[in-house]
Amino acid sequence: MSPIENLTGELRKLPGVGAKTALRLAYHLVKGPKDNLRRLARSLDLVADRVHPCPTCGNYCDADLCSICGDPARDQEVICVVEEAYEVGAIERAGRYGGLFHVLGGRLSPLDGIGPDELAIGALVKRLGGAGGPVKEVILATNASVEGEATAVYLEGVLRAYPVRVTRLARGIPVGSDLEYIDGTTIAEALAGRREM
Amino acid sequence: MSPIENLTGELRKLPGVGAKTALRLAYHLVKGPKDNLRRLARSLDLVADRVHPCPTCGNYCDADLCSICGDPARDQEVICVVEEAYEVGAIERAGRYGGLFHVLGGRLSPLDGIGPDELAIGALVKRLGGAGGPVKEVILATNASVEGEATAVYLEGVLRAYPVRVTRLARGIPVGSDLEYIDGTTIAEALAGRREM
Repeated sequence: MSPIENLTGELRKLPGVGAKTALRLAYHLVKGPKDNLRRLARSLDLVADRVHPCPTCGNYCDADLCSICGDPARDQEVICVVEEAYEVGAIERAGRYGGLFHVLGGRLSPLDGIGPDELAIGALVKRLGGAGGPVKEVILATNASVEGEATAVYLEGVLRAYPVRVTRLARGIPVGSDLEYIDGTTIAEALAGRREM
Repeated sequence: MSPIENLTGELRKLPGVGAKTALRLAYHLVKGPKDNLRRLARSLDLVADRVHPCPTCGNYCDADLCSICGDPARDQEVICVVEEAYEVGAIERAGRYGGLFHVLGGRLSPLDGIGPDELAIGALVKRLGGAGGPVKEVILATNASVEGEATAVYLEGVLRAYPVRVTRLARGIPVGSDLEYIDGTTIAEALAGRREM
């Protein structure tokens, strides 16, 4: 196997990259300066060497704790639960949340063999502590998909035993969108969750 | 900059990879086994270390000559001229061509500052040799775009001075397509190039 075929094969393992895209990417890299190849290789090695899940929240980090868990200025009374680590960034970019996070590492999906034991639920419960613990609220920010919803319902059942408020993100009309393109279920949720102006 | 941000930045340099795709790829790699990261890094290093243009035809290779130029069983009398190295594979996969290749490394595109001197035209002419040289035919397989067509016309002018037959790929209806979806220019070309059944 030639080096180019080898690279094409590795690129093909990436999500959303088929045979033609892998070939196009490989030839783009081959045609460009060798520095680009090496820089990408070094950045991959750096991630392999340094990045690991934060022992507290499960987000990826390259220090003992992630930058959020290690920041005493964050609100220690709220934990926002997300399915995947990259969703932490989506919420952080919104710029309105100053609490902590907890990464489940997936969603309940029995067909894929993912049950409660595959998710970081025990670690979440441990963070709540007993009565008088610091955490007052858990925000369930799982996705608005069937699996995300099922995961939220399951978590709500688990968390009921603890003295914390359990909330979830509001469902409704996404900002900037036209009503005529919004599905009926979303409109029904938006009506049910309507607020005083 | 964290290792993940660093990797995301490198991935973003790939063609067709925007900010969101780069993030998705980076997190996919972070979440998977570290072996995958290292294998991709090694395959990039291998390409940077080993792959270079074939000194004869300009196709990429990791030996002194590419596998096609180095194969004495290939027809040494025909050279098929393509714009980019990855197009060699497209023609090879068709399984009907047994001659040699020549990679121009682009197409004439004055707006992008690519003139004849930026393409491997001198190297092509050198391969033709004088009268009695081995090459009897040059097939122009540049793309059927405006720039590809202009490049073919320019090459035809250059090659006219040499005792070789200059041909180009037939224009016509792609196999398996419906006439109603074919543009008028293509149909006109297909009519002009019609053949006896």
